[in-house]
Amino acid sequence: MKGAFLAVDWGTTNRRTYRIGADGTVEKTARDDRGVLAMPPGGYEAEAGQLREAFGDLPMLCAGMVGSNRGWAEAPYVPCPAALGDIAREAVWVEPGRTAILPGVSRPGERSDTMRGEEVQLLGAAASGAVPDGALLCQPGTHCKWARVEDGRLAGFVTAMTGEMFALLKEHSLLSAQLNGAVEAGRAFREGVADSGGDLLARLFGVRAAGLLGQRADADAASYTSGLMIGSDVRARLTESGGAEVFVLADAELGALYRTAIAALGGKASLVDSQAAFAAGATAIWNELA
Amino acid sequence: MKGAFLAVDWGTTNRRTYRIGADGTVEKTARDDRGVLAMPPGGYEAEAGQLREAFGDLPMLCAGMVGSNRGWAEAPYVPCPAALGDIAREAVWVEPGRTAILPGVSRPGERSDTMRGEEVQLLGAAASGAVPDGALLCQPGTHCKWARVEDGRLAGFVTAMTGEMFALLKEHSLLSAQLNGAVEAGRAFREGVADSGGDLLARLFGVRAAGLLGQRADADAASYTSGLMIGSDVRARLTESGGAEVFVLADAELGALYRTAIAALGGKASLVDSQAAFAAGATAIWNELA
Repeated sequence: MKGAFLAVDWGTTNRRTYRIGADGTVEKTARDDRGVLAMPPGGYEAEAGQLREAFGDLPMLCAGMVGSNRGWAEAPYVPCPAALGDIAREAVWVEPGRTAILPGVSRPGERSDTMRGEEVQLLGAAASGAVPDGALLCQPGTHCKWARVEDGRLAGFVTAMTGEMFALLKEHSLLSAQLNGAVEAGRAFREGVADSGGDLLARLFGVRAAGLLGQRADADAASYTSGLMIGSDVRARLTESGGAEVFVLADAELGALYRTAIAALGGKASLVDSQAAFAAGATAIWNELA
Repeated sequence: MKGAFLAVDWGTTNRRTYRIGADGTVEKTARDDRGVLAMPPGGYEAEAGQLREAFGDLPMLCAGMVGSNRGWAEAPYVPCPAALGDIAREAVWVEPGRTAILPGVSRPGERSDTMRGEEVQLLGAAASGAVPDGALLCQPGTHCKWARVEDGRLAGFVTAMTGEMFALLKEHSLLSAQLNGAVEAGRAFREGVADSGGDLLARLFGVRAAGLLGQRADADAASYTSGLMIGSDVRARLTESGGAEVFVLADAELGALYRTAIAALGGKASLVDSQAAFAAGATAIWNELA
């Protein structure tokens, strides 16, 4: 099944749609907030129709939370190690020949983990040659994914609640009033990274105390706290992996924060184009679909 | 200034009042939710009058957030190391000879920290002989305090956002729906303690994944998550202190969790009566007031 198609990275809150030509190039892409949480009951078919009106009347491949038990149709997890072919094989066709939903990937065993949608980007980065075999990849976000791709297969991965925890602190905690400043990869952020050892819960209260005692301007508190969180995340994975090079799939802003933390903790970071990686992964899956 | 008096541990949310006899015994005590957040503007004098109606028309000593800039009157922090006499000396009289507000204690310097109210209990435990000189004390709660008392002085302390972080996860996070079970110091809690190394942000997402993959009953998720948080807290302090004996000032429920975590991580825990410690500290301060 070849030719032009639509690929949709359909997450909980946001969605990005790509029209991909027969030669694999991205002809059009746009992001909106029509994620799974915004869908009315039974509304997916109408929604797919609207996407086709906007992007072209083409077959459609959907990845992400759209395949969870809260989405359009449940596509059960494929266990690690998983290749693009394994994912294609378990696609669920909600409109035969027209619209397929991709499964997520699970990591069973002692340290269980799951992902939905990220696997297309991660495996796409490897398939397109953007990262070398055996690379350690990092996808920052609400739930930051760290993955190893070996021989074209997602060999293993770990998810950290880094972004969600920062949001909880910013919106609901004792620190909320101090965390309204911009987060920037400057001095305060690097101080947070340096303080991000195994003492996170106490370092967070230190943000409050430093404010009360006038030892850090509240304008710097968000950057410092972000440094604590991202530093904890990066430190755990660099320790586990032995400090390898990390390929970061992120937009410029979040990418700069992770690059700074990785460099500060002795690693080497390279940025990878995440949209190109998703398109490459979706195209490879599309070409494998029977 | 000796004789019977009222001592009030007046916190942000809760308040505990003690009537203490001339011989230092607690004659009456009660806890309510008339904390600082429940006070109307200018309402403290009327509130003190109501306390005297309920507990006796006696002089009154108030500790805790009542002395912060959101309380009755601000009593600036006394820096560490601080003895009971240093705290008594900086009391602020809001009703001369009748009602005094105690200052909190600050830890200035590279690792800044603050407390308000806990110092009375911590120093009281040492003054009453409930803990030996040089003891490491732990007061679990929303903001868990760990303190060292040497030669009758609060030598240093660290605060961890352990309880607040658990509450944030329970009330506002992706894990909320899984965290409604009772928290108990059993197997799931001990598994959380064992997993509580320097990888907290990823272990927390593991709670979600274990639920999705059917690897842990949601009824156990709250105990496991509490074990992660308390384990992180205890581990950091035992590492810092070299694994000393810990004297825990807590009610039975929270005390059991901390004792279990401390024992699992190679420490030794003893429970101390926190109300008796507060009364002893307040009495010693009262006897020092000029």
